[in-house]
Amino acid sequence: MAQERSSRELYEAYKETAQKAADLGNAAAVLGWDQETYMPQKGFEFRGRQLATLTSMAHELTTSDDYGDVLHTLSAGNGLDDTEKQNIRLSVEDYEKNKKLPPAFVEQLTMQTSASYNAWLKARKENNYSIYAPELEKMIALQKQMADMLGYEGHPYDALLNEYERGATVAMLDPVFAEVKEQLPPLLGKIKQAHQVDDSFFYRHYPKQQQWDFSLHVLHKMGYDFDAGRQDISEHPFTTSFAPTDVRVTTRVDEDNFASLLWSSIHEGGHALYEQGLPHDQYGLPLGAAASLAVHESQSRLWENCIGRSLGAWKYFYPVLQQSFKEQLADVSLDAFYKGMNKVEPSLVRTEADEVTYHFHVLIRYEIEKGLISGTLSPKDLRDAWNTAYQKYLGVTPPDDKQGVLQDVHWSHGSFGYFPTYSLGSFYAAQYFAQAKKDIPGLAQQVEQGEFAQLLQWLRTNIHQYGRRYKADELCKKVTGEGLNFSVFMQYATEKYTGIYG
Amino acid sequence: MAQERSSRELYEAYKETAQKAADLGNAAAVLGWDQETYMPQKGFEFRGRQLATLTSMAHELTTSDDYGDVLHTLSAGNGLDDTEKQNIRLSVEDYEKNKKLPPAFVEQLTMQTSASYNAWLKARKENNYSIYAPELEKMIALQKQMADMLGYEGHPYDALLNEYERGATVAMLDPVFAEVKEQLPPLLGKIKQAHQVDDSFFYRHYPKQQQWDFSLHVLHKMGYDFDAGRQDISEHPFTTSFAPTDVRVTTRVDEDNFASLLWSSIHEGGHALYEQGLPHDQYGLPLGAAASLAVHESQSRLWENCIGRSLGAWKYFYPVLQQSFKEQLADVSLDAFYKGMNKVEPSLVRTEADEVTYHFHVLIRYEIEKGLISGTLSPKDLRDAWNTAYQKYLGVTPPDDKQGVLQDVHWSHGSFGYFPTYSLGSFYAAQYFAQAKKDIPGLAQQVEQGEFAQLLQWLRTNIHQYGRRYKADELCKKVTGEGLNFSVFMQYATEKYTGIYG
Repeated sequence: MAQERSSRELYEAYKETAQKAADLGNAAAVLGWDQETYMPQKGFEFRGRQLATLTSMAHELTTSDDYGDVLHTLSAGNGLDDTEKQNIRLSVEDYEKNKKLPPAFVEQLTMQTSASYNAWLKARKENNYSIYAPELEKMIALQKQMADMLGYEGHPYDALLNEYERGATVAMLDPVFAEVKEQLPPLLGKIKQAHQVDDSFFYRHYPKQQQWDFSLHVLHKMGYDFDAGRQDISEHPFTTSFAPTDVRVTTRVDEDNFASLLWSSIHEGGHALYEQGLPHDQYGLPLGAAASLAVHESQSRLWENCIGRSLGAWKYFYPVLQQSFKEQLADVSLDAFYKGMNKVEPSLVRTEADEVTYHFHVLIRYEIEKGLISGTLSPKDLRDAWNTAYQKYLGVTPPDDKQGVLQDVHWSHGSFGYFPTYSLGSFYAAQYFAQAKKDIPGLAQQVEQGEFAQLLQWLRTNIHQYGRRYKADELCKKVTGEGLNFSVFMQYATEKYTGIYG
Repeated sequence: MAQERSSRELYEAYKETAQKAADLGNAAAVLGWDQETYMPQKGFEFRGRQLATLTSMAHELTTSDDYGDVLHTLSAGNGLDDTEKQNIRLSVEDYEKNKKLPPAFVEQLTMQTSASYNAWLKARKENNYSIYAPELEKMIALQKQMADMLGYEGHPYDALLNEYERGATVAMLDPVFAEVKEQLPPLLGKIKQAHQVDDSFFYRHYPKQQQWDFSLHVLHKMGYDFDAGRQDISEHPFTTSFAPTDVRVTTRVDEDNFASLLWSSIHEGGHALYEQGLPHDQYGLPLGAAASLAVHESQSRLWENCIGRSLGAWKYFYPVLQQSFKEQLADVSLDAFYKGMNKVEPSLVRTEADEVTYHFHVLIRYEIEKGLISGTLSPKDLRDAWNTAYQKYLGVTPPDDKQGVLQDVHWSHGSFGYFPTYSLGSFYAAQYFAQAKKDIPGLAQQVEQGEFAQLLQWLRTNIHQYGRRYKADELCKKVTGEGLNFSVFMQYATEKYTGIYG
């Protein structure tokens, strides 16, 4: 069949199927967004099956033999332009990966995810890891099976990493985390010895509406297009995209912790700017999608940390903020505010960690995941391994499981290999930001004036427009002249914290 | 293939396909709801194609030959219980109807809908019917073709009516509208001669939040389950269901017209109570769906008019309302409030009409639709026909097209045969309400105390629980002992307005 059609017809057929699958996936994203923001409680009863139908039908479309035939005929590349060839190359990659997992296995995984997630919820409620352990063990067994099905050259964990970060391997990550282990502790040690900064003013009372309005102002200044997105409230902040013309962020408000809303809002805003910047004409195709989780995280971290926790940006924003919170911030100078937002302190919970200690949280999870997948660590010993690692790297020991091994949802969802992308994102962010400073004359002054249009344009041109064309490391090389380089982050962090802690 | 499977297996296969199609339809409903409530403006760019994918894939599922084979094998009824047999009977009906329209025709209709709708928008903007006329003409030509494809015994319009109201025919509706034409004008004449009631207090300033809170209070008292629904703001009020556990209503707020929000909120609440009352275990199957548009409208009208515009209900609600709007309603007695909400006055716009004149608006459209479909009225003459009819039946002439022939969106969407269900709904509502009063001792007192639980239970038991099992007329016969009977409405209206206008 496929051979009789022209490559133009075949490409249109490919596009139609891929975009239909994207439509289903984006519809599922709308349902997911609704579930986290506005859905009434009882809506859960049928929402699960509606989501399952959408995702399974999308999966069916992109794993059908007919689709495979079209892809393989097109992969010869005859009569296609470069963009089209890239789409086909990446879709073939996806297709072959998808075909490696038999439907029965995917179903088993879905069911186990539900069981593990429920066990995790229950374990958290009762603050007892033992309730979760048996279901986690089954999940890990499936993950090992999945690694075998997907295949790998080096470490079995590579197969899982590749699900989140194309091309990432243990061989590539081990040296990076070795640098983390070697270089961050001395910096953290110096900070610990210095006089601690005060951030108590964040925990004064900040009324919800003013916090909300200020976060909208910041998003607006960042260049987030509110005609192509919106911000809502959810329990956990997230970004979701239904199309580059409809990319939404959520945040949460804590009236007694100003930091809770603002930086999560900026972080999600960074993710959203990336999605809004993807090429519209590649909707539903690989070149219309984000490059990888690490690249995504590089965008959120660049805005959250390199901009959102910089002295420069607050030279512009702090007077505005003080207008909104006259009483709360009357006795807080810009310098004190800046130092407070950059307080470094070893802590128990990843999502609340500062820019330095954050990477120990990731390192711990990376080492544990490798152990669980290779079998050198048993799920039974996970709590002990966790607590030991926290003592070793951060000098803290969780008082209970909720603040320890039960804090993240990821493993219950079957996400092994996801955590490293958080650190990679920060490291790439430092590299991209360093390059942007070189490429944009006067960027520092622009930032101090609350002008981010050139920075956003730079990100659009150098990163967003390419979609999935390049892997994270290739893209970094193309933009900065070198691949992942931890020392750029290290230099950024050393300069920043020397300035703050002396 | 189909014959080799047991009827149990076949029924499960049927259920799976039907429920998958329902999942897609319900997902489309979520996207539709989002589009009308929260979607940012640019989201339109890809939302249209996402909706089209969902609906076309649902259509594919329920028109496949395989599905047809399963249905036809099952329609022998072996090994099925009564509920299952009813589902199969109705699904076969749907299947055969769906198969009558070739995919190419459905696509042509979809494209014409888009063209007609855009022309309607443009014509409304420029307040000029002529802009709309050519696209409407094409739409009518397609509707005639569709009537032929669907088939009919009497009038070609029957085929279209049946799309909205199973079993409805011109032969059935003509006598009903003949009664409308005969019996309503004398009542309207008497009202016109009486002293007009004052409703000017509705147009004082009513702050948004208090209006909103009051409408939530009313919905709550009606028995609307907010754990299985929510109210939001949209330009045009509507009810949408994603499952019986997630049925949402929308409304609009006009601070200078209190009537705008409240009765639309009650009306949509009535629709929503029906959807929330459909049997959960029949999700996605005919017996889990509403009986028909007229039955749906009977539920909304019963709550909006028989309850929401009754003196009894306001004996309970008016003191609550006066608490919310102390200043605005200080000089308005309950009696004046009740009379004001029931003011009868011929007007130009259907959606703003009172309970009496409303049916002339529907009658006009019914007669025009019959003429357009049978060919006795040309779209070119539509504006004149419209204006003449308004003068004839209501004694008013539209000053422009926006308040005349361009006021409704329905025809641009290709909905011919929809309007009559609005009147049928009111007439059935009167019949059901009369029966409920007979069946529930003390209903009047309950209503005066703001207690509606027994009324809702009566609706649940007599109407909601049956889903699509009965056609509108069969259901009415089952519940009240007789089919559609305009005189019950006439009696209700005569009593009510005699009380108000003397």
